[in-house]
Amino acid sequence: MNGRTAAKARATGPALPAALDDGRVRAVVENVTPSIDGGRFAAKCIAGDRVVIEADCFADGHDVVAARLLWRCDDEAQWRHQPMVPLGNDRWRAELVPEAIGRYRYTVQAWVDRFLSWRHDFERRVDETDLRLAARAGAALAEQAASRAGGDAAARLADWAARLERAAHDERDTAQLKRLGLDAAMAQSMADAPDLGLACVHPVEFPLVVDRERARFSTWYEFFPRSAAQRPGVHGTFKDCEAMLPYVAQMGFDIVYFPPIHPIGRRNRKGRNNTLTPVDDDVGSPWAIGADEGGHQAVHAPLGTLADFDRLVQRASEHGIEIALDIAYQCAPDHPYVKAHPEWFRRRPDGSVQYAENPPKKYQDIYPFDFESDDWRSMWRELADVMLFWIGHGVKVFRVDNPHTKAFPFWEWAITSIKAQHPDVLFLSEAFTRPKVMHRLAKLGFSQSYTYFTWRNTRRELTDYFTELAHGPGRHYFRPNAWPNTPDILPETLQYGGRPAFMARLVLAATLSASYGIYGPSYEHLEATAREPGAEEYLHSEKYELKARDLDRPDSLAAFIGRVNRIRHANAALQANDSLRFLAVDNEQLIAYAKSTPEHDNVVICVVNLDPHHPQSGWIRVDLEALGLAPEEPFQVHELLTDARHLWHGERNYVSLDPQRVPAHVFRLRRRVKREQDFDYFL
Amino acid sequence: MNGRTAAKARATGPALPAALDDGRVRAVVENVTPSIDGGRFAAKCIAGDRVVIEADCFADGHDVVAARLLWRCDDEAQWRHQPMVPLGNDRWRAELVPEAIGRYRYTVQAWVDRFLSWRHDFERRVDETDLRLAARAGAALAEQAASRAGGDAAARLADWAARLERAAHDERDTAQLKRLGLDAAMAQSMADAPDLGLACVHPVEFPLVVDRERARFSTWYEFFPRSAAQRPGVHGTFKDCEAMLPYVAQMGFDIVYFPPIHPIGRRNRKGRNNTLTPVDDDVGSPWAIGADEGGHQAVHAPLGTLADFDRLVQRASEHGIEIALDIAYQCAPDHPYVKAHPEWFRRRPDGSVQYAENPPKKYQDIYPFDFESDDWRSMWRELADVMLFWIGHGVKVFRVDNPHTKAFPFWEWAITSIKAQHPDVLFLSEAFTRPKVMHRLAKLGFSQSYTYFTWRNTRRELTDYFTELAHGPGRHYFRPNAWPNTPDILPETLQYGGRPAFMARLVLAATLSASYGIYGPSYEHLEATAREPGAEEYLHSEKYELKARDLDRPDSLAAFIGRVNRIRHANAALQANDSLRFLAVDNEQLIAYAKSTPEHDNVVICVVNLDPHHPQSGWIRVDLEALGLAPEEPFQVHELLTDARHLWHGERNYVSLDPQRVPAHVFRLRRRVKREQDFDYFL
Repeated sequence: MNGRTAAKARATGPALPAALDDGRVRAVVENVTPSIDGGRFAAKCIAGDRVVIEADCFADGHDVVAARLLWRCDDEAQWRHQPMVPLGNDRWRAELVPEAIGRYRYTVQAWVDRFLSWRHDFERRVDETDLRLAARAGAALAEQAASRAGGDAAARLADWAARLERAAHDERDTAQLKRLGLDAAMAQSMADAPDLGLACVHPVEFPLVVDRERARFSTWYEFFPRSAAQRPGVHGTFKDCEAMLPYVAQMGFDIVYFPPIHPIGRRNRKGRNNTLTPVDDDVGSPWAIGADEGGHQAVHAPLGTLADFDRLVQRASEHGIEIALDIAYQCAPDHPYVKAHPEWFRRRPDGSVQYAENPPKKYQDIYPFDFESDDWRSMWRELADVMLFWIGHGVKVFRVDNPHTKAFPFWEWAITSIKAQHPDVLFLSEAFTRPKVMHRLAKLGFSQSYTYFTWRNTRRELTDYFTELAHGPGRHYFRPNAWPNTPDILPETLQYGGRPAFMARLVLAATLSASYGIYGPSYEHLEATAREPGAEEYLHSEKYELKARDLDRPDSLAAFIGRVNRIRHANAALQANDSLRFLAVDNEQLIAYAKSTPEHDNVVICVVNLDPHHPQSGWIRVDLEALGLAPEEPFQVHELLTDARHLWHGERNYVSLDPQRVPAHVFRLRRRVKREQDFDYFL
Repeated sequence: MNGRTAAKARATGPALPAALDDGRVRAVVENVTPSIDGGRFAAKCIAGDRVVIEADCFADGHDVVAARLLWRCDDEAQWRHQPMVPLGNDRWRAELVPEAIGRYRYTVQAWVDRFLSWRHDFERRVDETDLRLAARAGAALAEQAASRAGGDAAARLADWAARLERAAHDERDTAQLKRLGLDAAMAQSMADAPDLGLACVHPVEFPLVVDRERARFSTWYEFFPRSAAQRPGVHGTFKDCEAMLPYVAQMGFDIVYFPPIHPIGRRNRKGRNNTLTPVDDDVGSPWAIGADEGGHQAVHAPLGTLADFDRLVQRASEHGIEIALDIAYQCAPDHPYVKAHPEWFRRRPDGSVQYAENPPKKYQDIYPFDFESDDWRSMWRELADVMLFWIGHGVKVFRVDNPHTKAFPFWEWAITSIKAQHPDVLFLSEAFTRPKVMHRLAKLGFSQSYTYFTWRNTRRELTDYFTELAHGPGRHYFRPNAWPNTPDILPETLQYGGRPAFMARLVLAATLSASYGIYGPSYEHLEATAREPGAEEYLHSEKYELKARDLDRPDSLAAFIGRVNRIRHANAALQANDSLRFLAVDNEQLIAYAKSTPEHDNVVICVVNLDPHHPQSGWIRVDLEALGLAPEEPFQVHELLTDARHLWHGERNYVSLDPQRVPAHVFRLRRRVKREQDFDYFL
């Protein structure tokens, strides 16, 4: 290429970037965590949590970089900020502690800190001429900082700048000049007035949903209010539910969840055992919602009135219990929506409404909403209004039925906008489906999610699954809620394992997961008969008929459940999942795991015999260091189910569990605090 | 809440999302890979590569989802598309094969496929009335598709719709109706005219840089043109370089890289061994760029003229060799820029230009550019023009000196915009610094990067590092280039390991990494004397003085290097890194690894003795299945360095390596193709 061609290349040379505001921004921020799909979705935490935010922050060259966390509540205009500290390898960390519930956002800012870079070099300078010149450069930086700082700091910095400039010229003793330049108080004042003119802010504002504690730690009890009378053939009422509250509270539950309480459709109503041939007194499925007298905002008349419901909510709260309602967005054929909003349902070519089906199976008692309806906007609004209506009646927790069969954008909009008005409302996703769909729902805003726990039985299955839940990439947004049974699911383990299986599965749910629930009184009464071999449906399922039970049955697990739930309440280690760690045991039928508070002031070790038929024993290996114990320190394990106490030494310890007695140990680890007159005391 | 409050809640209910175009879009696309920082940076590949693109695609409910890959060259207006296939667990895959170099983008589109959902149900329908109704629904879908499809397809679909509608009413035989509805040709026509009205497109257009093959597979030889005369005291010229080309080509190198060829500063010039007291005939460091006669766009007069350079580039290309220039953006104090553009440099408080320093060290022969200069725009343009100038002189490869000490935004802009005009230009990042900085530079656009190979010596170090390079998250954008030595770095291994270390390190670089380079003739002449014990600098470093060497030295490694490079050219397995797999060996001093083409038609197994002092032997375990061999299949290994052939059976095989002979085996695996008259033939 000759000179002419070169000139041409220049003329057609690259244009300067239009989008780039300032090419002098040298610092970068990468890999901010937590980050759910690059900030598309919110991470979740609880008010008061210490949320660890990290990022890679660095710049070209050898200058010193500084970084800070920016965060604010969504309705605040100004960012708050706090310094990040370097962890090495260009990783930086800060802890964000949101005090109130609501929606927040955070991001990270980094910059080349001219003053820190100057100070780093100044400290190492040897040559006197260089030192004096550098002192003058430092004075200039301080003068600029003075103009950025307010009040006293400005005066202090200006004064220091002047003294440094003078000393650069006058001082005979360079050691004193060096001391002045490295003054720690001034360094702090400089740090308080950083030059952010060329700072880099990560372009994504990462959302964070801050919930109340019950989002993380909750104990659910599901029962059918229509069975609350506990007398054969008598339809239960909200008043009967009130009467059950002491029973439920005694078992230590803090959320009572009701299947739908709305009018039940009459057209195509299902009979007992899900038959298509109902008889007159068949009560139908509460999930077939809506009849002439009303839909999702009405109360099924046999249960009582809206006022009765309001009183029940009030009574429950006096017991420390919240009432959770079932949100099942589907309609019985006689739901008022079907007439009022025909455009919300899909039609078959003969003009009839498309019922739910999975050919060759048909569910003619259920009309699903068509989320591809042209009138989706008014439908969305109406569906959200259903929840707002019940929020108006004191409901703060919704268990959402099959959310994975409704359009994802609806949930994101509904949950986000309801929580914007009512940040204390919680949503439990009842989606037993493919993993990515369940995770998507959690990302969209569901506060808690049902899990595969119901079908995880072996040690390997439980270990893999709960390790993934506690430590996998979903841990920032997917809060598990473990259910050993539901009205839909009587798992095989319970069908064939008898009382030991019911006890073991309860302890597993209650200790592996900070949130869990049971469907009762079926559970405490050990109901275990399936509709047919190989089925998970209950025989004489309560979904289609009233039940009358004797809550005082001598073989009831109620007292055992109460004990387990009181242990959960008394031990903070069991109220979160992030510390979960499985322990090695030399017997495949035993599973052992530990949970701990971050400070190790509460450590719980659980051991469960997974074999409901035979006693099992083995040696478990306690990872002492991870639990904050010195290798040679003896410690007491206090068995909280039986109140027995054992002294353990070292990492290998023996356990034996007879399923005919109690198939589980829940040990609280107690540390020796002092030795006095030959006695050890353990706290 | 009474009715009034409920009405109020409704009135203040959530607003419908403004940003959401259509709430009916039910499919989602998540987790597209490759994705570099969420699409902020480009993945890299080579023209003709099969680039695997994957994504999670799913929707609510049970409808069937379809997905396709969208991609286009940056300068094309229309997306191309190709179907993605489901892998299970909602993961989808397609392969993108860009035929030409340039910059591309890709994204993924997914939708609920009404027709496939209909077809899935139709196949399972039993009830005749339902089947007839469903047939009519299918006919309606086909009619809509006919209006989307063009030409013949439209007619075929319309015809099929009419026949299906007629059959729904007339057909006696539902089996025939079912066959008509499930017609495979029609299903294909439907798939060709999908209803994308409610399709979801992942919002990120992921960039992809497609390079020519040399970006992945290149063999570099660095030498100082001023030493090319090979006569004591005689300054080499470009003409002397021409004379060296056959020597370099014979060794199998395809890129010759020159340290800077520009005028060398006189002010503060460094003397031999980096001293501050040069004598008159000291030639100075070529990295102290610029003197009165010119800067980065000029040629150092003793080397010859620009026309000489142009001819050298031409001669080199006749040998299949490209000339790579060193881009070192820094100035000697007498560089013309310093007078012409004083605003491009930082000043000290006394008005003097700030030289490079790392207190207490000073580099007074070097003025760095100030990337925080207010005049950064004109500086960027000028710096880019330097590369454009040399591109105009036939240079297509740049080795960039210390890019990590220049602002990141500059590199992104310069490389992206130069490649937009010259997509065949390649950039090698010479950043020996912290991992995240090196990765950032690769993300910003550098085609290749120097690595830590120079300091990775033990089996563990090499295994961990090259596993990370081949399989870690950087594999999509960080292309390693391994150098056993450079003019700056004479690693300890070479200082003390003698000829066996030079041979072993060369084989490691040449076979672990598809791109590698050496600084010669220093390397083939086994130069190994450090400036002082513990230093990595060469004594009498060529950076500060001319060298004269006898290229025909009998102890030269040139022939060995030539053999290794011919092996690289003959074996496609060695021309990429993604198949790298380390093999177990029972001797810690031996390292073994395999590389293979995707089709296993070329498989190479390397074994290197890392101990330069003693023979080492051991059993290596060959993962037969991974290399496409049946467990009982005998195979031949053809030792390519010595041409020996061995018959191996099974996965455990014995090797022994004497460093005094050849410290490495490079085996080509040859498969038995047939047995004939008691002879085995291996290909």
